[in-house]
Amino acid sequence: MLRVAVAGASGYIGGELLRLLHGHPRATVVAATSDRFTGRRVDGPHPNLRGHTDLCFVGHGDLTGLDLDVLFLATPHRETMARMAGFLKLAGTVIDLSGDFRLRDPETYASYYETPHTAPELIPSFTPGLPEWHRAELATADRISVPGCMATAGILAVRPLAEAGLIEGEVRVDARTGSSGSGASSGSAGAHAERSGALRVFAPTRHRHEAEIAQATGRTVRMTATGVEAVRGVQVLCHTTLAAGVSEKDVRSAFRAAYRDEPFVRIVAQRRGLYRLPEPKILSGSNFCDVGFAVSGETGTAVLIGALDNLVKGGAGGAVQCLNARFGWPERTGLEFPGLHPN
Amino acid sequence: MLRVAVAGASGYIGGELLRLLHGHPRATVVAATSDRFTGRRVDGPHPNLRGHTDLCFVGHGDLTGLDLDVLFLATPHRETMARMAGFLKLAGTVIDLSGDFRLRDPETYASYYETPHTAPELIPSFTPGLPEWHRAELATADRISVPGCMATAGILAVRPLAEAGLIEGEVRVDARTGSSGSGASSGSAGAHAERSGALRVFAPTRHRHEAEIAQATGRTVRMTATGVEAVRGVQVLCHTTLAAGVSEKDVRSAFRAAYRDEPFVRIVAQRRGLYRLPEPKILSGSNFCDVGFAVSGETGTAVLIGALDNLVKGGAGGAVQCLNARFGWPERTGLEFPGLHPN
Amino acid sequence: MLRVAVAGASGYIGGELLRLLHGHPRATVVAATSDRFTGRRVDGPHPNLRGHTDLCFVGHGDLTGLDLDVLFLATPHRETMARMAGFLKLAGTVIDLSGDFRLRDPETYASYYETPHTAPELIPSFTPGLPEWHRAELATADRISVPGCMATAGILAVRPLAEAGLIEGEVRVDARTGSSGSGASSGSAGAHAERSGALRVFAPTRHRHEAEIAQATGRTVRMTATGVEAVRGVQVLCHTTLAAGVSEKDVRSAFRAAYRDEPFVRIVAQRRGLYRLPEPKILSGSNFCDVGFAVSGETGTAVLIGALDNLVKGGAGGAVQCLNARFGWPERTGLEFPGLHPN
Amino acid sequence: MLRVAVAGASGYIGGELLRLLHGHPRATVVAATSDRFTGRRVDGPHPNLRGHTDLCFVGHGDLTGLDLDVLFLATPHRETMARMAGFLKLAGTVIDLSGDFRLRDPETYASYYETPHTAPELIPSFTPGLPEWHRAELATADRISVPGCMATAGILAVRPLAEAGLIEGEVRVDARTGSSGSGASSGSAGAHAERSGALRVFAPTRHRHEAEIAQATGRTVRMTATGVEAVRGVQVLCHTTLAAGVSEKDVRSAFRAAYRDEPFVRIVAQRRGLYRLPEPKILSGSNFCDVGFAVSGETGTAVLIGALDNLVKGGAGGAVQCLNARFGWPERTGLEFPGLHPN
Repeated sequence: MLRVAVAGASGYIGGELLRLLHGHPRATVVAATSDRFTGRRVDGPHPNLRGHTDLCFVGHGDLTGLDLDVLFLATPHRETMARMAGFLKLAGTVIDLSGDFRLRDPETYASYYETPHTAPELIPSFTPGLPEWHRAELATADRISVPGCMATAGILAVRPLAEAGLIEGEVRVDARTGSSGSGASSGSAGAHAERSGALRVFAPTRHRHEAEIAQATGRTVRMTATGVEAVRGVQVLCHTTLAAGVSEKDVRSAFRAAYRDEPFVRIVAQRRGLYRLPEPKILSGSNFCDVGFAVSGETGTAVLIGALDNLVKGGAGGAVQCLNARFGWPERTGLEFPGLHPN
Repeated sequence: MLRVAVAGASGYIGGELLRLLHGHPRATVVAATSDRFTGRRVDGPHPNLRGHTDLCFVGHGDLTGLDLDVLFLATPHRETMARMAGFLKLAGTVIDLSGDFRLRDPETYASYYETPHTAPELIPSFTPGLPEWHRAELATADRISVPGCMATAGILAVRPLAEAGLIEGEVRVDARTGSSGSGASSGSAGAHAERSGALRVFAPTRHRHEAEIAQATGRTVRMTATGVEAVRGVQVLCHTTLAAGVSEKDVRSAFRAAYRDEPFVRIVAQRRGLYRLPEPKILSGSNFCDVGFAVSGETGTAVLIGALDNLVKGGAGGAVQCLNARFGWPERTGLEFPGLHPN
Repeated sequence: MLRVAVAGASGYIGGELLRLLHGHPRATVVAATSDRFTGRRVDGPHPNLRGHTDLCFVGHGDLTGLDLDVLFLATPHRETMARMAGFLKLAGTVIDLSGDFRLRDPETYASYYETPHTAPELIPSFTPGLPEWHRAELATADRISVPGCMATAGILAVRPLAEAGLIEGEVRVDARTGSSGSGASSGSAGAHAERSGALRVFAPTRHRHEAEIAQATGRTVRMTATGVEAVRGVQVLCHTTLAAGVSEKDVRSAFRAAYRDEPFVRIVAQRRGLYRLPEPKILSGSNFCDVGFAVSGETGTAVLIGALDNLVKGGAGGAVQCLNARFGWPERTGLEFPGLHPN
Repeated sequence: MLRVAVAGASGYIGGELLRLLHGHPRATVVAATSDRFTGRRVDGPHPNLRGHTDLCFVGHGDLTGLDLDVLFLATPHRETMARMAGFLKLAGTVIDLSGDFRLRDPETYASYYETPHTAPELIPSFTPGLPEWHRAELATADRISVPGCMATAGILAVRPLAEAGLIEGEVRVDARTGSSGSGASSGSAGAHAERSGALRVFAPTRHRHEAEIAQATGRTVRMTATGVEAVRGVQVLCHTTLAAGVSEKDVRSAFRAAYRDEPFVRIVAQRRGLYRLPEPKILSGSNFCDVGFAVSGETGTAVLIGALDNLVKGGAGGAVQCLNARFGWPERTGLEFPGLHPN
């Protein structure tokens, strides 16, 4: 059994890590940290874990000397880069879920996060935590940076066509997200009476995940992000222009070639039925990212669609999948939950 | 035109008062107070009023010398009783929506609000703001205390049978409420991710509105209050025991006798159809309280049901109806909106 | 008082027409038709009208000889064009809410509706029912065709820039709609357990309203339509490329020039606040279409946003506004409801 | 591996059985029947199973000769009793999720189901499928009848006090349920626009599950059932009168004595925190039934609360737990999913 710990474990991503790691047959959670909840039971902020664990939160300082194999970081951006040097001493493998080590270019980081990067020298040592595109590197990676939730959906939806040279020009991404993406401390903007039923364009331009999709696909990306009525769930609609002569069959083939053997990517592009394109409704709790497409043959445009649970495949589940990839276990280990329908 | 003002106008009840008074043909809002938003436009916290008014919030102190006819109080309980003596000097008629002057007995107040009443001498001077049962008194009342949202639904559902002597024993009230009932500052308990989809029994016993229903009906009342997935809306299910020999026909007759000519109470107790008993879904924005019942003939029990929009009939709309009753205008004045379906 | 009737009055648009016309000071509803509900009360399928009207549905045939001034058509497409010749004999003014007379080109109609147009000779006689852009024509129009709900939002969002020559290239429209847009007979796809929480891309390409926006703006339009968790409400995000040298100030000026004096279009493009861009959450029941924009200065792109209540400004309310425009009444007549917040 | 089949597998309970049995380490699903979907893939109506199974539906007749160990019945009531004799020949163990064999008294059945029981001679041979109260019998039972969803919650909430003699008089049950409880064919009453946001008292008296709770607790039960805004989830509030001298401590002790070692019942009755009483929000997908209570000391009344996922613990999960109990496996086998938070 690997000895693992979660830093920043009282938030939503942290809670989801605890849930998944608790059910993982190869890992034992030896510590979960929280500044705010130190000394209290983890099933307080995470009531779904009642009856599953008696673990209590410890302070960040208590991680020292725990002989950790793996440390998961669910700490806020900015704070994470400031403390990364210390974190790296605590465990052989560090899997970071913050935004601080996703962008390769410190200037881009500074532009999108509106603060200079304080540990740029560490950036190159991190491997992107997306097994579908970095599996080989992950097998030996000791520093892993898991992409953002909307970025994961966007990259998985766009990259097959981008890699195959089937699209040209800008990609316009329309991203939709549930309220859990704002975290457990969302303030008055997140009050139920205000957030319920919202279609809130909270980032009409320049959302941070835009830069990640651009970096991973090599395309210019323009993204809008809208908060929709849901707790969990992300969906992206990526409007693209197809290169001359590209047919729907070519598009389908590119997706198949990319994801045929993937354990957690399903191609959903059916002619009929209720769930014929990806949507997060049936993905809550699961580690799937469903991807699909619709081609407008006459005009040479395609809409590429991705959907996932932002706290699982777009966060904690993606991180556990990286853990599995890193240690050579079957990637579905601990991630078998198929999602619920109806839900 | 009457000159009216709203104290505590930045909250949800305050905003609803502004909406209704703005559309009222006999009243002009000359001031709206807010500690927090002083100097800012009222359509900031109340974006539905954009394009309807250019009013800005003033401080409480700015009410002096405004020559007000009517002052509406949407201020918090406890603060309201502390400042009531001052409020009463500002306008000929004061309509209070706080909880401070609803309970006639200061001891009961102290027990339910867990604080002593600081102005008990003023309590007897207030008339209950429920036109259906206090119309004559309201015609000359200068101090009006509007009942709580769940209390309004409960009183309107139970009182016809209580008055007619058709029920005996305790009344068990199961109350359900949307998130707007917690006000605009609900804290982390009100965060969308936590509150969405909730069935939260936040008051399994001793909710304050229980005491109001008991006072108005003369029955012992046991009430539970549950937060449900909705922004607006209150529904109460009141489980009662019928007196010996009371039939469904008697129950219906009692409701008809009580509410036949009421402008804002509809009796909804149909044999078929989708909306055959009261529910708040179709009442948002309207001043109706729908009441209904179901009798279990063989056992002598009845469930009495009430539903309303907590911010309208259970708050601001009820207060405006009192205004109309006080000044002898048709009670529907400014309150004609019929509600939406579907919604 | 004008004598008006509604054909196809048992559906959601029909019910909304009845609600608005019932509250209209210049019109009397003399008949409401329904094949399915003939002889039954209109407040059966429209329970919000309880206590407001005792009207019962009649058959379509019963419209003859009623001496109607205005006939509103909320009948299905295809059926409407087949019966239009007959409808036109029944009233001096016909206001059609079906899709059959919106597209000027019968070939385009045939392509988008997948059926030939059976009354192409009548198309030119209809005036588009969008007062913001056709006010002068509407003042004398006897045949009015109200645009689709998503089309109304899209046209109002895009046309100011299109007319001013500020955009170039294709417009990509991301449209989101609540479940009431599917009508009262939505079948198993509309079952709550399946539709709740959905982000259903039901029309990834070729939605019919796409053709209306293209026709009204002169731009090539690519639209996707997604069903979101809501009953009422439409929001469109229109991704555009700005012409060289166009600044945010130019964009704002174009919107102001177009809508400065409009009673039902509000420009919502604020720097801060919760509701700083248009969203339907606060528009339920109101006739407003809020429009806004976000410019990405460095790249010369803009997202234009429109939001409305699909059953009001995107349907029945738009039709009543046309009625007012046609008969020279203030356009706000009968349409004053400001919407609710929170909701 | 046990050979199991599911009859009536295209509905929501059937789909949930397939999901759980697919992940069960001791069982193989060899057949799933559906009249309507014969020959089609099970992941059509159950899209969450995509990538998990290639199973296709067969007809009921195709169950013959399959050498089944266990047959689960998710067939409609009335149809189930008519065909039970045939079903019993197909497998050594039959686990019935219909309502037909839950009530021991055929007269009670006839009264609540409004149809005579057509196989009353089979009723005594069925064991109630509630391991918490029938574990010993289940270990050898070949015919098991799983209780209704609201009945399961009600029995688990009330029975500890009823068995211990701590309550007297009637029990008033306020039950709330999500839309999935109406099944996959709910008709126009279940259309999203009508059902969304509902607080629909669809059974003010005489709900069938009332009779089950009465039978299992020996108390007279009066139950109302309300449809609330949720897809999954049941919650019951059971208003009881405590016997003289019974304290909160006695109540807690009775719950502890009953459920201390239960794998799927958690006692949730905390003094503080957000989730201090049971609610279904955090139980989706899990097999837990949370139970709790609130005592009004001064008056001798108690509210007993139960919550569960109607498709899992209140249906398919309960049935799988019975399977485990029947075959001597740990009861958590295949049922480990802890539920999601937030959700």
